[in-house]
Amino acid sequence: MDPASPASGRPRRPTVQSDIQEAILHPGNVRINVQGAFIADEEHPGTPQSDDYEHDPKDIRLPNHTAVVSHIALDIGGSLAKLVYFSREPGDDAIGGRLNFVKFETDRIDSCIEFMRKLQADHRQHNGSTPEDLCVMATGGGAFKYYDRITEALGVQVKREDEMECLIIGLDFFINEIPNEVFTYSEEEPMTFMPHPPDPPNIYPYLLVNIGSGVSMVKVSGPRQYDRVGGTSLGGGTLWGLLSLLTGARSFDDMLRLAENGDNSTVDLLVGDIYGQAYNKIGLKSTHIASSFGKVYKMKRAAERDAEDGCNGDMKHREEAEHVQGSAELPHSTAAFRPEDISRSLLYAVSNNIGQIAYLHAEKHGLPRIYFGGSFIGGHSQTMNTLSYAIRFWSKGSKQAYFLRHEGYLGSVGAFLKRQPRNWGRRESFQGQKVTL
Amino acid sequence: MDPASPASGRPRRPTVQSDIQEAILHPGNVRINVQGAFIADEEHPGTPQSDDYEHDPKDIRLPNHTAVVSHIALDIGGSLAKLVYFSREPGDDAIGGRLNFVKFETDRIDSCIEFMRKLQADHRQHNGSTPEDLCVMATGGGAFKYYDRITEALGVQVKREDEMECLIIGLDFFINEIPNEVFTYSEEEPMTFMPHPPDPPNIYPYLLVNIGSGVSMVKVSGPRQYDRVGGTSLGGGTLWGLLSLLTGARSFDDMLRLAENGDNSTVDLLVGDIYGQAYNKIGLKSTHIASSFGKVYKMKRAAERDAEDGCNGDMKHREEAEHVQGSAELPHSTAAFRPEDISRSLLYAVSNNIGQIAYLHAEKHGLPRIYFGGSFIGGHSQTMNTLSYAIRFWSKGSKQAYFLRHEGYLGSVGAFLKRQPRNWGRRESFQGQKVTL
Repeated sequence: MDPASPASGRPRRPTVQSDIQEAILHPGNVRINVQGAFIADEEHPGTPQSDDYEHDPKDIRLPNHTAVVSHIALDIGGSLAKLVYFSREPGDDAIGGRLNFVKFETDRIDSCIEFMRKLQADHRQHNGSTPEDLCVMATGGGAFKYYDRITEALGVQVKREDEMECLIIGLDFFINEIPNEVFTYSEEEPMTFMPHPPDPPNIYPYLLVNIGSGVSMVKVSGPRQYDRVGGTSLGGGTLWGLLSLLTGARSFDDMLRLAENGDNSTVDLLVGDIYGQAYNKIGLKSTHIASSFGKVYKMKRAAERDAEDGCNGDMKHREEAEHVQGSAELPHSTAAFRPEDISRSLLYAVSNNIGQIAYLHAEKHGLPRIYFGGSFIGGHSQTMNTLSYAIRFWSKGSKQAYFLRHEGYLGSVGAFLKRQPRNWGRRESFQGQKVTL
Repeated sequence: MDPASPASGRPRRPTVQSDIQEAILHPGNVRINVQGAFIADEEHPGTPQSDDYEHDPKDIRLPNHTAVVSHIALDIGGSLAKLVYFSREPGDDAIGGRLNFVKFETDRIDSCIEFMRKLQADHRQHNGSTPEDLCVMATGGGAFKYYDRITEALGVQVKREDEMECLIIGLDFFINEIPNEVFTYSEEEPMTFMPHPPDPPNIYPYLLVNIGSGVSMVKVSGPRQYDRVGGTSLGGGTLWGLLSLLTGARSFDDMLRLAENGDNSTVDLLVGDIYGQAYNKIGLKSTHIASSFGKVYKMKRAAERDAEDGCNGDMKHREEAEHVQGSAELPHSTAAFRPEDISRSLLYAVSNNIGQIAYLHAEKHGLPRIYFGGSFIGGHSQTMNTLSYAIRFWSKGSKQAYFLRHEGYLGSVGAFLKRQPRNWGRRESFQGQKVTL
C-alpha cells in the first residue's frame, strides 16, 4: 500500500469544486479548523515504517476540518528533512483528517521527493485537478539548497519561508492549539502537561531554543514578533558526529541507549577529583563536572608512561593504567573507555552547554520561559532532564524549561500554517471560544 | 646542577638575621619590591628543562628586591600544577632576584614535591635557618587533595588559599605591575601590549575567564572584590581528552600543531552546506559554522550505506564516501578524517563556546573587559584569535578580550602575593610614583 496515501483506493466524500479552486489559487490560505484537535497516540493504518523515512506515530487529529488542503510543508535542516501533510480520515462516514509527520535524512532528499511525488499523485487522484495542485511550502536551509531539485522533480512551485519565522509560528500553534503537547520535565515528575488552553499572559515573551544539527535561539515577544538572538555550533550534529567516531554507534537511538547505561565519572573530571571534596566556598558539589572528558588525557598519558617505563611506573600510574588497558599499545584507540560512558559524558556536555547558553540569553532579554525544540531532544528523558536541570541550576529556579511532543516539527508546521489568515490575535480578546486559525 | 637552585655553591651577600626571622614568622608578609620589574625573555642560567616539568623562560626580574623571601606558591589544578618561586640573581655583585615559573602534570605531583624539596634545601643552605623556614602557599583543588602529602613530604605547613581569590590577585598584579604582560590579539595585529602603568579608570570592573581543564568565570569589581559568576566544563581537558582519543596526538603541542594545519570545513557543517549560500536574513555568512562535527555522522552513514548497497548507492553517496574511505570497513575508526581537521574543528568549537559564554556573562554583569587566563591558551595564536573574534562577534565590538604572557600562573602568583601587606589601594591616590606591594 502506498504509505503516503492512507485512504488510496477508497471512495471519498465529494469535495466542493470552489474549495479546490481556492486551494489551488492560494495554497496555504485554507483555514485549518483546529476545533477539537488532539494528538492521536496510535499507529494509524496505512503508514508502515520504512528504511527511507520515519513516520511519527503522534498524528494530530483534526476532527472538524473539511476543506480541501492543497499544500504540504517541508523543513530541510542540516541533518533531517521534516515533512508535514494533511490526510483525510479513511472510511465513508469519517469526517475530518489529520496532520502527519514524517522525517527523512537530508542526505537522502530523493526519498523525500519520492514520498512527496506519491502525495501529489494521491492528491490529484482524489481531487481531480492538475498536477500543479499540490504546493510545497519549504523552509530551513534545504529550501534554498534543494529548491531547483524539488521544483523540477515535482513540477510545482516551491514557496520558501524564513526558517526562524516558521519555527515560532509552529511553536505558537502547538502552545495555543494542541492540548497535551507542551510539558515540563523533571526526574520526579516526568512530563507534566501544561493546562490547555494556555493563559494568554503566560505565553509571551519566551525564548525558543531549537536544537538540530546546530542550535538557534530565538526571542519571541508576541505573535510573529521574533529575533534570532544567538545560537551555538555545539548541537545534535556535534553529538552524533563525535559519538559515531568514538563509539561506533550507527544511529541516534543506539547512542541514546548507550548514554542511558553510561557512567560519566569514568571520563569526566569532577570537582571531587580535583579537590578531593566539594568546593564549598562557591557551592560546587564534589559530583559537579569540572571538565568534560577531563580524565581521558591523563589516563592515556599514564598508560603511555607505563608502557614506556616497562611497567616500572609508580603504583598510582599503574592503578590508572588498569582502566586503560590496551591504550598503550593502541594510543589512538578508544577501546579503553566504555562507549556507554563516553556517550553519557558527551550528552551531558552538549545538553548542559546548551542549557547554560539558553539561560544566559533568556536572562539578557528578560525571558522567563524557555522552550526547547528540535530533533536533538527526540523525547529522550536524559536529555530533557539535563536541559531542565541546567535551566533550574543557572536561573536558581527563576526560569522554566518547556518541551514539546512534536519538538522536531516546529519549522514544518510553521511553514504549513504560515500563509493562513492570521487570527491568533483574536485570542487576545479571550472570549473563551475556540477559534480556527 | 640543581635545577631549582640557580646560584647553589656560589657565595652570597649576607642577609640580615631579622629579615630571616620576620620571613619565618610571617611567611608571605615580606613586601616584594617590584620597582623596575620586567619580563626577562631569555633562558636564564641553571634551569635546564626536564621530562618532569616545564620551566617557563619568561621569568620576571625584580632588580630592586633585597629582602629574604621564605615562601613559594603552588596552584594545583585538575591537569597541571603551577609553581612560582623567588630566586636571587647569581653573582657576587648582582642585586635583586626573579620570579620563576614551573609547570608539572598534576598526576606527577611527586616530581613537584621533589622539586620543592630541593628549593627547601637550597633555602636552608643559604639562609642558615631550620627546615621549617620555607613555607608553601597552595591554591587550586590540589591544595586540598594533596595537602597531607605535601605537608608530610616537606615537613612544612601548607597554607591554603582560595582559588578564585588567588586568580584575581595574580591578575591584578600582572595588570598593575608588569609592563609588556597584558595584550590584545587580532590576526592583523598580534600582541598589542597595553600601555603601562594602566590608567586606573580602565582597570575595573572586568571578567576573568580562566581556562584550565575546566573554565571559571570571575567578575571582578575592584581590588580583591570578586564573585565567581559561572564556568563551563567544556575546557582544556575536553579538548585534550577528545583529541587524544580522536587523533592519537600525545601532547598539547602536537594537538596545536595539528590544528594549525587543519581545515575544519571537512568535518564542520557550515551555513553554506545547509543553505547552499549565506543565511542573509540573520547575517550568517556561508562560512559560519552551523554545527561542529556536523558532517561526520552524515559521511559515515553514507559510507556505511554504500558498503551495505555493494556500491549501488547513488552518486551523491559515492562522492561523499570518497572522503571516508575505510570507514565502512572500520565504522569505529577515525582514520577517514584528517587529524588536522578534527583538531582544528574542536579547537574552534571549544574556543568559540568559551568566547560566547564569556561574552554573555560579561554582558549580564556590565563588564567591558574580558581577561583570558589559564594554561589552555598557552600563547597559541589560533586559540587567542578565536577567543578574540568570538568576543568581537558577539559584543559587536563593544567588549575587548585581553591575554597575558603568564596566563597559566595567575593562581600561583596570587597565592605567592596574597598575604603581603595590601597596598594596591595606594595606587588610587595616583601620585605617579612606583610603589612596592
